[in-house]
Amino acid sequence: MSKPIYVLNGPNLNLLGSREPEVYGHETLDDLHQRCGQKAKTLGHSVEFRQSNHEGELVAWIQEARTDASGLIVNAGAFTHTSIAMLDALLACPVPIVEVHLSNIFTREEFRHKSYVSKAAKGVICGFGGLGYELAIEALAATTSPG
Amino acid sequence: MSKPIYVLNGPNLNLLGSREPEVYGHETLDDLHQRCGQKAKTLGHSVEFRQSNHEGELVAWIQEARTDASGLIVNAGAFTHTSIAMLDALLACPVPIVEVHLSNIFTREEFRHKSYVSKAAKGVICGFGGLGYELAIEALAATTSPG
Amino acid sequence: MSKPIYVLNGPNLNLLGSREPEVYGHETLDDLHQRCGQKAKTLGHSVEFRQSNHEGELVAWIQEARTDASGLIVNAGAFTHTSIAMLDALLACPVPIVEVHLSNIFTREEFRHKSYVSKAAKGVICGFGGLGYELAIEALAATTSPG
Amino acid sequence: MSKPIYVLNGPNLNLLGSREPEVYGHETLDDLHQRCGQKAKTLGHSVEFRQSNHEGELVAWIQEARTDASGLIVNAGAFTHTSIAMLDALLACPVPIVEVHLSNIFTREEFRHKSYVSKAAKGVICGFGGLGYELAIEALAATTSPG
Amino acid sequence: MSKPIYVLNGPNLNLLGSREPEVYGHETLDDLHQRCGQKAKTLGHSVEFRQSNHEGELVAWIQEARTDASGLIVNAGAFTHTSIAMLDALLACPVPIVEVHLSNIFTREEFRHKSYVSKAAKGVICGFGGLGYELAIEALAATTSPG
Amino acid sequence: MSKPIYVLNGPNLNLLGSREPEVYGHETLDDLHQRCGQKAKTLGHSVEFRQSNHEGELVAWIQEARTDASGLIVNAGAFTHTSIAMLDALLACPVPIVEVHLSNIFTREEFRHKSYVSKAAKGVICGFGGLGYELAIEALAATTSPG
Amino acid sequence: MSKPIYVLNGPNLNLLGSREPEVYGHETLDDLHQRCGQKAKTLGHSVEFRQSNHEGELVAWIQEARTDASGLIVNAGAFTHTSIAMLDALLACPVPIVEVHLSNIFTREEFRHKSYVSKAAKGVICGFGGLGYELAIEALAATTSPG
Amino acid sequence: MSKPIYVLNGPNLNLLGSREPEVYGHETLDDLHQRCGQKAKTLGHSVEFRQSNHEGELVAWIQEARTDASGLIVNAGAFTHTSIAMLDALLACPVPIVEVHLSNIFTREEFRHKSYVSKAAKGVICGFGGLGYELAIEALAATTSPG
Amino acid sequence: MSKPIYVLNGPNLNLLGSREPEVYGHETLDDLHQRCGQKAKTLGHSVEFRQSNHEGELVAWIQEARTDASGLIVNAGAFTHTSIAMLDALLACPVPIVEVHLSNIFTREEFRHKSYVSKAAKGVICGFGGLGYELAIEALAATTSPG
Amino acid sequence: MSKPIYVLNGPNLNLLGSREPEVYGHETLDDLHQRCGQKAKTLGHSVEFRQSNHEGELVAWIQEARTDASGLIVNAGAFTHTSIAMLDALLACPVPIVEVHLSNIFTREEFRHKSYVSKAAKGVICGFGGLGYELAIEALAATTSPG
Amino acid sequence: MSKPIYVLNGPNLNLLGSREPEVYGHETLDDLHQRCGQKAKTLGHSVEFRQSNHEGELVAWIQEARTDASGLIVNAGAFTHTSIAMLDALLACPVPIVEVHLSNIFTREEFRHKSYVSKAAKGVICGFGGLGYELAIEALAATTSPG
Amino acid sequence: MSKPIYVLNGPNLNLLGSREPEVYGHETLDDLHQRCGQKAKTLGHSVEFRQSNHEGELVAWIQEARTDASGLIVNAGAFTHTSIAMLDALLACPVPIVEVHLSNIFTREEFRHKSYVSKAAKGVICGFGGLGYELAIEALAATTSPG
Repeated sequence: MSKPIYVLNGPNLNLLGSREPEVYGHETLDDLHQRCGQKAKTLGHSVEFRQSNHEGELVAWIQEARTDASGLIVNAGAFTHTSIAMLDALLACPVPIVEVHLSNIFTREEFRHKSYVSKAAKGVICGFGGLGYELAIEALAATTSPG
Repeated sequence: MSKPIYVLNGPNLNLLGSREPEVYGHETLDDLHQRCGQKAKTLGHSVEFRQSNHEGELVAWIQEARTDASGLIVNAGAFTHTSIAMLDALLACPVPIVEVHLSNIFTREEFRHKSYVSKAAKGVICGFGGLGYELAIEALAATTSPG
Repeated sequence: MSKPIYVLNGPNLNLLGSREPEVYGHETLDDLHQRCGQKAKTLGHSVEFRQSNHEGELVAWIQEARTDASGLIVNAGAFTHTSIAMLDALLACPVPIVEVHLSNIFTREEFRHKSYVSKAAKGVICGFGGLGYELAIEALAATTSPG
Repeated sequence: MSKPIYVLNGPNLNLLGSREPEVYGHETLDDLHQRCGQKAKTLGHSVEFRQSNHEGELVAWIQEARTDASGLIVNAGAFTHTSIAMLDALLACPVPIVEVHLSNIFTREEFRHKSYVSKAAKGVICGFGGLGYELAIEALAATTSPG
Repeated sequence: MSKPIYVLNGPNLNLLGSREPEVYGHETLDDLHQRCGQKAKTLGHSVEFRQSNHEGELVAWIQEARTDASGLIVNAGAFTHTSIAMLDALLACPVPIVEVHLSNIFTREEFRHKSYVSKAAKGVICGFGGLGYELAIEALAATTSPG
Repeated sequence: MSKPIYVLNGPNLNLLGSREPEVYGHETLDDLHQRCGQKAKTLGHSVEFRQSNHEGELVAWIQEARTDASGLIVNAGAFTHTSIAMLDALLACPVPIVEVHLSNIFTREEFRHKSYVSKAAKGVICGFGGLGYELAIEALAATTSPG
Repeated sequence: MSKPIYVLNGPNLNLLGSREPEVYGHETLDDLHQRCGQKAKTLGHSVEFRQSNHEGELVAWIQEARTDASGLIVNAGAFTHTSIAMLDALLACPVPIVEVHLSNIFTREEFRHKSYVSKAAKGVICGFGGLGYELAIEALAATTSPG
Repeated sequence: MSKPIYVLNGPNLNLLGSREPEVYGHETLDDLHQRCGQKAKTLGHSVEFRQSNHEGELVAWIQEARTDASGLIVNAGAFTHTSIAMLDALLACPVPIVEVHLSNIFTREEFRHKSYVSKAAKGVICGFGGLGYELAIEALAATTSPG
Repeated sequence: MSKPIYVLNGPNLNLLGSREPEVYGHETLDDLHQRCGQKAKTLGHSVEFRQSNHEGELVAWIQEARTDASGLIVNAGAFTHTSIAMLDALLACPVPIVEVHLSNIFTREEFRHKSYVSKAAKGVICGFGGLGYELAIEALAATTSPG
Repeated sequence: MSKPIYVLNGPNLNLLGSREPEVYGHETLDDLHQRCGQKAKTLGHSVEFRQSNHEGELVAWIQEARTDASGLIVNAGAFTHTSIAMLDALLACPVPIVEVHLSNIFTREEFRHKSYVSKAAKGVICGFGGLGYELAIEALAATTSPG
Repeated sequence: MSKPIYVLNGPNLNLLGSREPEVYGHETLDDLHQRCGQKAKTLGHSVEFRQSNHEGELVAWIQEARTDASGLIVNAGAFTHTSIAMLDALLACPVPIVEVHLSNIFTREEFRHKSYVSKAAKGVICGFGGLGYELAIEALAATTSPG
Repeated sequence: MSKPIYVLNGPNLNLLGSREPEVYGHETLDDLHQRCGQKAKTLGHSVEFRQSNHEGELVAWIQEARTDASGLIVNAGAFTHTSIAMLDALLACPVPIVEVHLSNIFTREEFRHKSYVSKAAKGVICGFGGLGYELAIEALAATTSPG
């Protein structure tokens, strides 16, 4: 059976829709989940969509993706800027990785400009809200088969 | 019914009383819990007092405080200096926030001088041991009603 | 009549296909032009596709885009990291702007990590080769009408 | 006879109430003086409340406090960030010292984040407006007797 | 009656004419005073011209200018680079402020390149010796009426 | 015959009046040209007023000014902060040079605080909009004869 | 009964043997566990060998080691470079601590050169793969008795 | 027919002989052209000698050199320190590259010590005035045949 | 009549003998005054010995020393590290200047390692307590006549 | 015949036992020599044990080790932090290299945290006093045969 | 009799030919000596060619060159980046100095980019292997007579 | 018999009198030796006066001074700024240490402002030429007996 694209979301993304809507928009994480599922389906893929506030859980999911995913989309939230542990897991992950951010992190505070995830990602998409996830799926679909 | 003031304590604060007493004093976390409860009671408030060594759990509790607390007191311990995830949760929290530290972090190692929590807090109180928690409750009580 | 999406390419992108193919791929700038044209057409848009090695010419084109374009895609090449003049032109440009890079600039030399273009862009897409341009057109099409 | 708590205010605090009220509030320095006097009285203490725009005068007052005060509350204003002379006087002062700021200095400009006063203070209270002075008196009263 | 333009000079400007004439010229502070008076008169204004070596006195004069001046010209001398206290007073001053320096501070030592005064000034004029004061009066006269 | 004062404007200044009017005002570059011409005329001078988005063209014009101008006014726009090439041309230029900026660059982004032009200029005038150009002409007229 | 030496392994060390074998070798974590057990046994000690991807769990284990271990060997993996929480737990731990790394972290990326663990460790051993754990046990055995 | 050695000169080098002769000597660019021509001839080579103040033009010439030159000598003048665009063109250029400077850039201002050209050059020669160009030709001739 | 050597002492030196005696010794400022007077007398000189906590007063005294002193000894205390105003006054002072510190400032906190006074002084003597003043007088006497 | 393990000690290690025993212990260099000899013997190896205060001599010994040693243990003392010359020699040395320090250099002054030796070493052992040398021999013995 | 050109080689250059041949080539130091001798002879000069691993010996040779050499060629090896002592000796040396490096130090590790030797050298030649020495001799011969 | 004061001079001080006399004066090292001898004799002391260009030799002499000197005067020349090896030897030396420099190092290049010697010295004297040595002897004589 085919392997899904893992879509992993980091801390506070469960607040999507209620937290700083002027930055992150009104779409909820569930909306985003559905949107990703539909986009993937259109392209012959499926998604495994998860969120955690725990760095260790995200590390474990990335490790799981090594064998169970056809591709990996990561919006690590605040961990983007601090988690070498997630970077190490990503470096050990042989499937293609796309980094996504809802907002354009380069127009925000200085400490949000540095990304450890970028060092392991094939590419980066940021600033397009939920649409960015769809673009990421499209980018992965262009280079991977659903397994 | 009224909402409590959340008092959230970060990593290693469960060691209070036994860890470096010359820095942190002999009071235990339970002592501190009681002290906070009594102070709050005097001012017509109650407290929800918790401690965790897990950044993710603290993030979740801050998220919970968005709706369930009348105010928030945070002693993030070591996460003070490293956790952008907690900062993001705090920034999404509409209740007044007070940052507390038992010791004067500015007379300690250089890496303890920077605080992510400060960026989201109304004010900061540090260096007064357990008394600082009482002062924080007093400060919150002066601007919030117990719900 | 409808306004095109401007796709502006900076210095050395005319070498595409022959320069460091292990970094930039074998696609030429003409291939890229065609690819963008077709993608835009599918979405009911057209593109105005240009390349220049002159910072001043790129500044002028961005100024032109203020009135003549429905959206702006910028791959500023090396000027990404040095041109405040292009940033100023972009800041004066009311149409939505997407920054694109063929390679993942964050896995390259340190001096390629800083982007002045990002400060004026709605979003950033990098690391997907020519596909990135298509994603950028898709992102613009989602928010702008060709009119 | 008992010794008062010295409350020393630095440059521009005489403008309180008229300067940037959105940052510092509408309370005047006289209001603050009264508030401190009443709080101290409640706790069996008295205050000696002063303000100066002169670093040298503040240094002299801190020196005076070495023998004439039971405790010292310092809001050094702009000198907080620049005055090693005040730091040296504070280091020579054997009575307990509390640093106070009306605003949360850590959410303001970068150059207001560093404090020389903190290096000599028992603790720091900032962000609570005039209430912060009362909390400081309370903190001093908890550890000192009025002479 | 009309309000004067305050012209405030910082430390060591009383030495003008004798101190490093190759940098500051042979004009004395009195010459400069007269020059400013005449220029202001031509434009229907008057000047209140002062000098002090005391930061605290300069802070007080800036505070005075809040109500008594129609405009403010500040040559803070060495305090330009170090005085946050003067910056705070200037930020609280609602009249237009022009920063003046006799020499071009940007061709001198590195530590003279940073100005706290600039953060509160409408504009900066430096490098034109005494003429710079006249240009500053002209600039103020163009936007303010003598009261 | 007399030599004109060269007034050289850098990238994006051709947008004057339409670009960020809250920063740069509503005056257009043509307005500014006229204003400079009239001011110069009053003082017995003429101006040669130009604008370019090309660093190389600006370098050439500065080189031309070495023999053809009586003085040089430079608003290098974004090149102020990046162009060592313009600095080198200015250093080779024996006529007096005045640096002008419409806005107070020291209250804007950090990367706009450094000026290469300042290293070669007699003086700097910034923050007074179009009036700054007139002051610059006045400053040059005070020290140069129109040829 | 005697207390074991705690051997705590940080994030991604569960991937040992499969992750970047050219850096970390082919030995698995279980192999390493056995190797440590045998070495300890030879020296009259036992080991308590654990791994976690959760910073909070590692903090808790270090706290546990305060009373239950005779010595502590820590390979904190990526947390080495970021976890002040683990440092604080280690500082509160009275048993001797040895820091171990499989690879020579000083020949890897710059961000892997700084260790918070080192500030609390008696000594550091890195670069010797699994052998480093044996050397660490030997070092602990030389100074501690198995309780 | 044989390919020439390209000798490309950056901004302001057209002023050679008149600009700061104490730094750059009295030789003009034409003198230098002749000198290079003669030296090359002696070694069985020819030169294509050009100068531009335009970064874009220099980029284009370097691109041209990819196919039309047997070797490349670059004195990028001020662009040495700022032009990543020229670096990118040089990195795409398969012929041997020698960086030349008339003066010893390491005894001049700090901002002239960094060279982007060096990152793509086989070697660097600086401080020998016009002779440096001859040495560069000699160095190229030793490793390349005239085509 | 002969001119005295000015011995100027900065902030907190009036506390000498009581402040941190383990750093500064038990000698008072009066003792030091006498010691300097006697040493100067032996060498045919006299001293004018003063102390102030006011930067402005110290600036004025240095200005006075320009005409009234044969030499100048400065222990600027905390102002050593912060006062550009004193540096400017010293740079305008034609008599020989010796910087003195009671303690070895280079073994104290980092922020005490930088001295503005050093930039204008002939030489520096630090770490010898009161004896340092005598050595300074000796150094001045060796190069100046008492007027 | 078999080749010895070279054990090279840098400056001031000849003072071992008398210099700062609280940091370095009471063991002398001779004791350490014997200890290494015995340890090596147990493992079928021999040691060539030397000490020098001369960087040049240490460079020469490392060069000698290229052909005459089976392994290399280096405690470069203060040269650890400054000697690129020793690093270059080590980089040219094909035998396995272990860096040793008696103390944990990471808990000492900041300037002792950087090691040039680490860049060429297989591994690092520090903080275990003389025992560290034995562990280093053990580590070398595990990967090298005595010739 | 004529004075030779001194050619001084720093640490590890005695390994030439065997050390990292992919960086330094296969030529030995003796080959280089011969090559220099022949080149010098052709130009009517002689060379005094030496190598040392001792900074002190190189300092002494540079001092010797003050009177005994007609010119000085220095390849200081690793001391290039660290030896202020050699810089001081070079600054005291009145003969023309050329700095040479076999490799292009600017494409190697960051710490090899800074050169103290450059501050005292007339010019720098790097990246041309042994040929660089010949070019240096040629450069010296062009400006000095053999004595 | 009494122990001498060791006076140790670092690299290039043997050039004294001939090297940069405008910085170091015309006195030779021999003159300085005599001057020190006479001064010491007057105070009942003797001196052991040495110079070396070798860091290792200076380290050895400092080690020797541990037992054979009554005091130590160190002018480490260029090693002042680079030699941690000398610092370590000085830290192991129980006799009082005075650091001397002929010139005022704080008015010279930035890299001469940092001193490792200062970290181990009782005091510092610089800027007084040969007289500084006499002052240093006087300072040592005041605290040590020659025996």
